[in-house]
Amino acid sequence: MGEARAGASFESRELTNIIHGDAETVQAREAAFSRVEKVLQSSNMSKLPGAFGEVNRTGQLMDGLRIGKAMLEERLQHKDSVFARITPQYWFANASPFGLHFLMFIPALKLLASPEQLAHWLPLAESAKIIGTYCQTELGHGTFLRGMETTATFDQVADQFLIHSPTTSSTKYWPGGLGYSSSHAIVMARLLIAERDYGVHPFIVQLRSLEDYTPSVGVELGDVGLKVGHNSSDNGYAIFTHLCVPRTHLLMGTAQVLRDGTYVAGPHDKLVYSTMLFARKAIIDTVYLQLAQAVTIAIRYSVVREQGNLQFDASDSREIPILAFKSQNYRLFVLMARAFALLFASRRGAKIYDEMIASRASGNHRALAPAHANIAGLKAYVTQTTADGVEDARKCCGGHGYLDMSGFTNIVTTATAMATLEGENFVMYQQTARFLIKSVSVQDVTLDESVAYLRLHVPEARLGPVADFLDPEIQLKVFRHRAARLVMEYAEALRVAQTRDVSAAHAWNTHMMGLISAARAHIEYTVLSAFVDQLRLVQDRPVRAVLQHLSSLFALSCIDSPHGLGFVEDGYISAPHLRQIRASIDKLLEVLLPDAVALTDVWNFSDASLQSALGCWDGDVYERMMQWTRQIPLNVSAAKTGGVFRPGFDEYIRPILRGKL
Amino acid sequence: MGEARAGASFESRELTNIIHGDAETVQAREAAFSRVEKVLQSSNMSKLPGAFGEVNRTGQLMDGLRIGKAMLEERLQHKDSVFARITPQYWFANASPFGLHFLMFIPALKLLASPEQLAHWLPLAESAKIIGTYCQTELGHGTFLRGMETTATFDQVADQFLIHSPTTSSTKYWPGGLGYSSSHAIVMARLLIAERDYGVHPFIVQLRSLEDYTPSVGVELGDVGLKVGHNSSDNGYAIFTHLCVPRTHLLMGTAQVLRDGTYVAGPHDKLVYSTMLFARKAIIDTVYLQLAQAVTIAIRYSVVREQGNLQFDASDSREIPILAFKSQNYRLFVLMARAFALLFASRRGAKIYDEMIASRASGNHRALAPAHANIAGLKAYVTQTTADGVEDARKCCGGHGYLDMSGFTNIVTTATAMATLEGENFVMYQQTARFLIKSVSVQDVTLDESVAYLRLHVPEARLGPVADFLDPEIQLKVFRHRAARLVMEYAEALRVAQTRDVSAAHAWNTHMMGLISAARAHIEYTVLSAFVDQLRLVQDRPVRAVLQHLSSLFALSCIDSPHGLGFVEDGYISAPHLRQIRASIDKLLEVLLPDAVALTDVWNFSDASLQSALGCWDGDVYERMMQWTRQIPLNVSAAKTGGVFRPGFDEYIRPILRGKL
Repeated sequence: MGEARAGASFESRELTNIIHGDAETVQAREAAFSRVEKVLQSSNMSKLPGAFGEVNRTGQLMDGLRIGKAMLEERLQHKDSVFARITPQYWFANASPFGLHFLMFIPALKLLASPEQLAHWLPLAESAKIIGTYCQTELGHGTFLRGMETTATFDQVADQFLIHSPTTSSTKYWPGGLGYSSSHAIVMARLLIAERDYGVHPFIVQLRSLEDYTPSVGVELGDVGLKVGHNSSDNGYAIFTHLCVPRTHLLMGTAQVLRDGTYVAGPHDKLVYSTMLFARKAIIDTVYLQLAQAVTIAIRYSVVREQGNLQFDASDSREIPILAFKSQNYRLFVLMARAFALLFASRRGAKIYDEMIASRASGNHRALAPAHANIAGLKAYVTQTTADGVEDARKCCGGHGYLDMSGFTNIVTTATAMATLEGENFVMYQQTARFLIKSVSVQDVTLDESVAYLRLHVPEARLGPVADFLDPEIQLKVFRHRAARLVMEYAEALRVAQTRDVSAAHAWNTHMMGLISAARAHIEYTVLSAFVDQLRLVQDRPVRAVLQHLSSLFALSCIDSPHGLGFVEDGYISAPHLRQIRASIDKLLEVLLPDAVALTDVWNFSDASLQSALGCWDGDVYERMMQWTRQIPLNVSAAKTGGVFRPGFDEYIRPILRGKL
Repeated sequence: MGEARAGASFESRELTNIIHGDAETVQAREAAFSRVEKVLQSSNMSKLPGAFGEVNRTGQLMDGLRIGKAMLEERLQHKDSVFARITPQYWFANASPFGLHFLMFIPALKLLASPEQLAHWLPLAESAKIIGTYCQTELGHGTFLRGMETTATFDQVADQFLIHSPTTSSTKYWPGGLGYSSSHAIVMARLLIAERDYGVHPFIVQLRSLEDYTPSVGVELGDVGLKVGHNSSDNGYAIFTHLCVPRTHLLMGTAQVLRDGTYVAGPHDKLVYSTMLFARKAIIDTVYLQLAQAVTIAIRYSVVREQGNLQFDASDSREIPILAFKSQNYRLFVLMARAFALLFASRRGAKIYDEMIASRASGNHRALAPAHANIAGLKAYVTQTTADGVEDARKCCGGHGYLDMSGFTNIVTTATAMATLEGENFVMYQQTARFLIKSVSVQDVTLDESVAYLRLHVPEARLGPVADFLDPEIQLKVFRHRAARLVMEYAEALRVAQTRDVSAAHAWNTHMMGLISAARAHIEYTVLSAFVDQLRLVQDRPVRAVLQHLSSLFALSCIDSPHGLGFVEDGYISAPHLRQIRASIDKLLEVLLPDAVALTDVWNFSDASLQSALGCWDGDVYERMMQWTRQIPLNVSAAKTGGVFRPGFDEYIRPILRGKL
């Protein structure tokens, strides 16, 4: 491992500073991680992490609360923001029972409350005198707000709202920490005044007594049970039975209801969507770290792990590090390139979001639609790329990747959740597609910057023959071509359908798969352009070189990939081009190989945060695996009874052997 | 749901009979499932299945032993073979602690033992007087047998072998049931006689006392700990310290060691690989059922689940069944088509295997290499298609697919294991590729039937313009073209490299990704041809029609898919072709839509075997979800303490609210 580390072409700390922002931030993060790891006693790598032992559902939740409290403590005492978005294992913070408090409850207050309301609630929330969650999804309804059934009926006599779940399918279901950990929630419900339905609005609801945490009158609360992952949080359900909340608990940034029941609309009716937009942006900000974790583990293990050999001589039993095999080399470096692409894409997402917020603050709401469309698509792209990538990295580790102690189970199960929550990805791409189609169909002088290239696009039948595929300008041109071609093609298909009197809804449904591929192509262009833009900012020459290689590998592997059909189907990229591209990829892999381990180090993951017997910094894989295996509670207890698992032997095995079936 | 069921174009029982063989087999299977479900008390669908409750690792293993005993009992008392390969939940049987007994221990005995040895061991094994496993993989070594480190040294004085683990990385690691459930194992170890290494051979080793199950002297046994799935089995480890086994425990079908230490080679030195071949074939035989389960759940839920609508009118809040959305329709029907393709591919695999065994019995070993190559590739194809497919089906269920009670967690975690165990898929494809390259490179008059098309192939630059893509002959032609083109292209690349004095190993590594894609193309052609062949055997006209649609959907969605680049890159399939193909897919989806639920029913999964709140036969999703949710032990116990999770509140939440951090 030391040898593999020594051969790097660049100084890894330089790149770490770029990944996390700057040297100061890196140090602050390191300090925060080591404080929390000390509280959690998680950094002794000779000890089997408790989660890989004998823990049941209740134990998992208790562990989640323990970690959640440590995160809260760190945040309150040190004012740092490291653990507002992620857990000490780099999971998205909604995996913690208190995760939504900083992730959505406080941001939603800031987005949706009036200044007076904010002055009341924010200090309580920020000092954790109350613990909040965000309560939108229902058993039968996801991100489609208009389908929501929970009602908030204005009771003028008592000057209050009655929150109610009229059907089984209206049960609030899924919010993190809703089961047993939150005292308050922002509940989304249809506002009804004198039998008129004003649509979905946010209400602040006290769920539990702050004294003893018993549920408020009018609400049944509980846990939704075991999940693929995130079992350290109590995602919960809530059934409301005419629960009373004061009139002033309608969050009045969106609308007001006066004492006499008059409804006063807020500045922008799309504001109720802003919390979802914020949450998607927060996902984009963090989820690539899980891809980086997975590739870190897989590359480190692939340097240590030997298997087979490349000789065809059957008598040769020497084995070689598996990273030397092209298939392993290809898969893992492409994933590493993607981790960097998503890192820089997150910066683009943040920029789009921040500019939208700034322009909204000055009363301009024009940026909302493009921000919404691009962030929805980016959310789909980064979460799907991450979910697929972490699973592929796991498979690159062979059987051992299937062990919880590999660290992958947690990474895969938390990462895959991101592809579904806060907007299912096929729905997200359609929101991007709608915006793209509108952008090219409506004559609008002020086309958003993110799609300006669509208008400038000049269709070309075929890319010239002498393209240098390592030139970022060529790469961008190819990506632009595909995106623009697909958007134009499906815009035209929808237009033609309209002239034939097909309903817009039906035409959309017919071309849905094509529209999704167009949206994906636009987003992938956006991601590449974010990567290329970032390259220009890098001062350090060796670091810029390695990032340049990774950027090229990202671009070219997108073309020669499962999603590459769109580059090739119209003949724009030809068979000779593909041969060139594959040769370029081979060259990039060769150049990058000596940087393999350094590229894992740059992410600066502590061993405690990885919790992986395969991926520790020292590469001491097999010794640590056996060290941990012997500490498994089942083995420890069997060792005390002569190496026999007594309950199983007595109840099941002995009767079988004695023929007593 | 009843309505969705009524619209089917065919009699579902007819198709069920085709899927499982014939009417008699279907009835026998139904009887076996209901007997076992009665023993396991798993068929009351108003009760939360125990596995979704509060179970820890020990509890999971106890449950695995309970289910394993019921399977064994069924098998011994009713002589049926249903539960030799699968568990009552359709998991591959290695998910049971006793699974490898019938799956590998007994088959390995039959393949590797001498007649005398078989006469001794088989009756013991078949009556479960002993419980066996198969012990090959080591901590540092997978399917590459030659790299294995465990030794079996002949001790001539005592007329015995000493089984020994010389290093940490030689620890036997992973075999199912090795931890605490098996009394015996077939252990693969390097045979050493007088310091000469004869390579890896199989030995039968008693691991535990049949009296009290204490480990034999010279072996440390234990569990490998928590895994992604399969936690109801005790995959285990074994460290041998000069454990003694009699000389007669070398399985002598492969070779013999005489009393004086003379080594007598067996009839075919590749026989030690035959157990792996058998295991891969068993995987191909069963794993598609998990894809069918996942699609069954997802389609049924997609008929019940409503979300959003297709109207662009913001005031419309009606929702429609999600299956009507093209993206859902497309994804799920393509997955259903794949489940059928893999079903019929499994028959092709069985045919290849059976013919190989038959010809070997008559002393002809020629069929081994092609059988090995094709079964390796099929194993990779069906397991990867299944692993990706079940995860995609899960994602099609949105957030609820993330709940264990959806049934998906178990399906996804058991199916994904198949893509790695018994030969990692990228390694498998390379074994296919080696055979393909050899087939076209060596002038051999008797080319195996499976690759005969490669020689008959006449390269054509482009498919004619008027292709009817619904014609199976056209589909087969397109698939043959891609496979043959890729095989020829990479055979040529390897040949050219050789003329340039590049070593064969280096050339192979350079072109590895292309060789893998060529192997995959060959296998996908094999799968399609198996599907088309089966169609010809179907008598019932409506059933044949629906299978014909599914076969076409399978073929065309392979072209217009993530892996479709190979059809398009050389211009053989053009942009106009692709438009035709997409239009054909749209037509197929429309035709198949009324058969949606019937196509789930035909697989004949009992509710108990699916264990899914989303996928039960009656479609009563939301009521059942809440019924099960309220039975979650955490909720039951909190209900007894005023709706509060006391341990969490007392230890963590109260201190936070009181500011005591």
